[in-house]
Amino acid sequence: MARIVMKFGGTSMAGTERIRRVAQIVKAQADRGDEVAVVVSAMAGDTDRLVGFCREANALYDPAEYDVVVSAGEQITSGLLAMTLQALGAKARSWMGWQLPVQTGSAHSKAKIDEIETGALLSSMGEGTIAVIPGFQGRSPGGRITTLGRGGSDTSAVAVAAAVDADRCDIYTDVDGVYTTDPRIVARARKLKAVTYEEMLELASVGAKVLQTRSVGLAMKAGVPIQVLSSFTEEDAPVADTIPGTMIVGDERLAQMEKEGSSVERQLITGIAHDKNEAKITLTRVPDKPGAVAHIFEPLSDANINVDMIIQNVARDKGETDVTFTVPAADLARATDILENQREKIGFNRVIPDTRVAKISVVGVGMKSHAGVASTMFSALADRKINIVAITTSEIKVSVLIDEDETELAVRVLHTAYGLDAEG
Amino acid sequence: MARIVMKFGGTSMAGTERIRRVAQIVKAQADRGDEVAVVVSAMAGDTDRLVGFCREANALYDPAEYDVVVSAGEQITSGLLAMTLQALGAKARSWMGWQLPVQTGSAHSKAKIDEIETGALLSSMGEGTIAVIPGFQGRSPGGRITTLGRGGSDTSAVAVAAAVDADRCDIYTDVDGVYTTDPRIVARARKLKAVTYEEMLELASVGAKVLQTRSVGLAMKAGVPIQVLSSFTEEDAPVADTIPGTMIVGDERLAQMEKEGSSVERQLITGIAHDKNEAKITLTRVPDKPGAVAHIFEPLSDANINVDMIIQNVARDKGETDVTFTVPAADLARATDILENQREKIGFNRVIPDTRVAKISVVGVGMKSHAGVASTMFSALADRKINIVAITTSEIKVSVLIDEDETELAVRVLHTAYGLDAEG
Repeated sequence: MARIVMKFGGTSMAGTERIRRVAQIVKAQADRGDEVAVVVSAMAGDTDRLVGFCREANALYDPAEYDVVVSAGEQITSGLLAMTLQALGAKARSWMGWQLPVQTGSAHSKAKIDEIETGALLSSMGEGTIAVIPGFQGRSPGGRITTLGRGGSDTSAVAVAAAVDADRCDIYTDVDGVYTTDPRIVARARKLKAVTYEEMLELASVGAKVLQTRSVGLAMKAGVPIQVLSSFTEEDAPVADTIPGTMIVGDERLAQMEKEGSSVERQLITGIAHDKNEAKITLTRVPDKPGAVAHIFEPLSDANINVDMIIQNVARDKGETDVTFTVPAADLARATDILENQREKIGFNRVIPDTRVAKISVVGVGMKSHAGVASTMFSALADRKINIVAITTSEIKVSVLIDEDETELAVRVLHTAYGLDAEG
Repeated sequence: MARIVMKFGGTSMAGTERIRRVAQIVKAQADRGDEVAVVVSAMAGDTDRLVGFCREANALYDPAEYDVVVSAGEQITSGLLAMTLQALGAKARSWMGWQLPVQTGSAHSKAKIDEIETGALLSSMGEGTIAVIPGFQGRSPGGRITTLGRGGSDTSAVAVAAAVDADRCDIYTDVDGVYTTDPRIVARARKLKAVTYEEMLELASVGAKVLQTRSVGLAMKAGVPIQVLSSFTEEDAPVADTIPGTMIVGDERLAQMEKEGSSVERQLITGIAHDKNEAKITLTRVPDKPGAVAHIFEPLSDANINVDMIIQNVARDKGETDVTFTVPAADLARATDILENQREKIGFNRVIPDTRVAKISVVGVGMKSHAGVASTMFSALADRKINIVAITTSEIKVSVLIDEDETELAVRVLHTAYGLDAEG
């Protein structure tokens, strides 16, 4: 017997037909004798509809009332899933965020989970009742409804899994796992059997939108194994253990899986991600003297703008230099405004914004112990005349900034260069 | 300063445009310096949509999960109204049924309100914050969501008004008051300035569907004055006190209003109601002996079928008689089944069901002290050759059963006969 938390997203919950399919999957899991809790999203589109109402009602809506409105979507699907499970002959009941409760902070519409009370929940699950829990919602210290921000249901699922000490958190989604790269770009992308939390975080933060980043961080902290798998692959109800998706686990667990020969073959590089949501800013003719760079980045940091890559070009002449760096494209206008306001203090000539860039990252824990990963990347790109604007590296990632038009070419070239192409 | 509870139905809450209109009405009330609580229904159609989901999910749905699903509709509108009030510059916050809490029994989907905690609510209202409360929902002793049954928002509003000792409960609806009869039948029907609780109960129970019967009974018990008025009559935000609807009050209050000359002129008869939802059953050749009638009505009573009018015809011959009575049309099939099963015990010849009947009632507290009301009715109907099948009376009502085809004619004739026609 295992204790499993299952999570189904909005596409899986879109209408009573699909909810019946979800109920079959959940019941199959429970029929194995497992204790099961299910965390659900609102029907696809329903949250957008409710958010739209809020915007119409009050452009500057009170986040506490916003939470009252939008949390209704998950309330509806959790009640419906519970009664559908009952229709299939399973014991089931719903638990609202305020009922357990899922205790959060009071930052409405972006609350963080502090603690989940599990006493009543575990005793009900122990009696064989499937628990159905609306994702995304919690209760503030003042007893009001809170929500965790968009995509918060993944986080809810992992938090519930951590709280009940689950053996696994299965996240059912509309893809059947994590791939070596975006299959829409590389037809020969392969589904990964397993990745580490760190790899998943790097892959997610640079564009592989399978799981909410926050939920992966939480799973890593709590040591909860996650499995990403699809609720759409099979006609008959599959059971999670027999139709594997991608496991997301810690280093040790991954090493153990390899040793046990569960066909997890580690490559040097696990995956290749791309991200077109970065923008490049170049400041020309910045004085090349101590402190100048601080005058650029301090005000951006104060404004919570995340600067990623930085290149300080070689001094041109007369003690002046160009400084190039990247920020999220969404923050570009704000960043250039801030810099213009600091023009006198920084002392630059021009601000040149550029959104036509892309960040390509190769990710893999394997590179910790292998040299040559970066040079393979650079030479593969050079062979195709792809110009590298900037480079950053971490222990398990090398990222380069290139012209946006070359994104697909670069991803394909690198996928082949690291031997990731599927056979056949 | 007064303490006012306002209630808005689903048509008034159907979409953010209409909610803005409701917010204007509520704010105008609060701007008079009154303490205001607002009870809201779900958007028109939303509850039906949610009930439809439940039926699709599980034909024999668990009422506890049904309550989770359908209560979401009022949760949404209460959050939206609170933020719309804030957009107009008013202080407002929503209070879910479980937050106050509205403590109910545990009969899910048809719960009764036991008690409403008002400590936090009154202190918030005392600080000038408008309270927005979803109707129809409460919390069971076990801490789960309950609902009061369809139309329960009227009951919620009156219960809140009673709990906070409100000066008045204003029920905004899509009609602007209670009329002497159905204006679709009699163009010269007049809006009533005031009726008593008892009259309203008789008018409502026989077809004037302005207020939920349960809510009127509760208001009578708690002595809460109700005002029925429309949220659609005026372009600019009206204030309840200046655009009067119909007041529903106790006998004494009504007498006081008359004395104060607030243009409440009492007529002998207050209104005329009609009801086509009755069915007639005739049992032929029932043995005319003691106990026979009990054998007919006991099993119907056991099955919770409400028998209204009863006529025992004169014995025909050989100690046999025909028995005629009415039941709600919705219970007709069930009633005839039960009677057929009792055929041997009762000993009748035939069961003759007939749904083509209507009940016409004249209602008014005035008839307590005036004779001749019934005879006016009988002669007015006789003049038009309308045949009376059965008669029942109460202290403030005379009802007759007639052929359904003559409903409109009978209502018009009686409206004129009792001097209720508006002038002009």
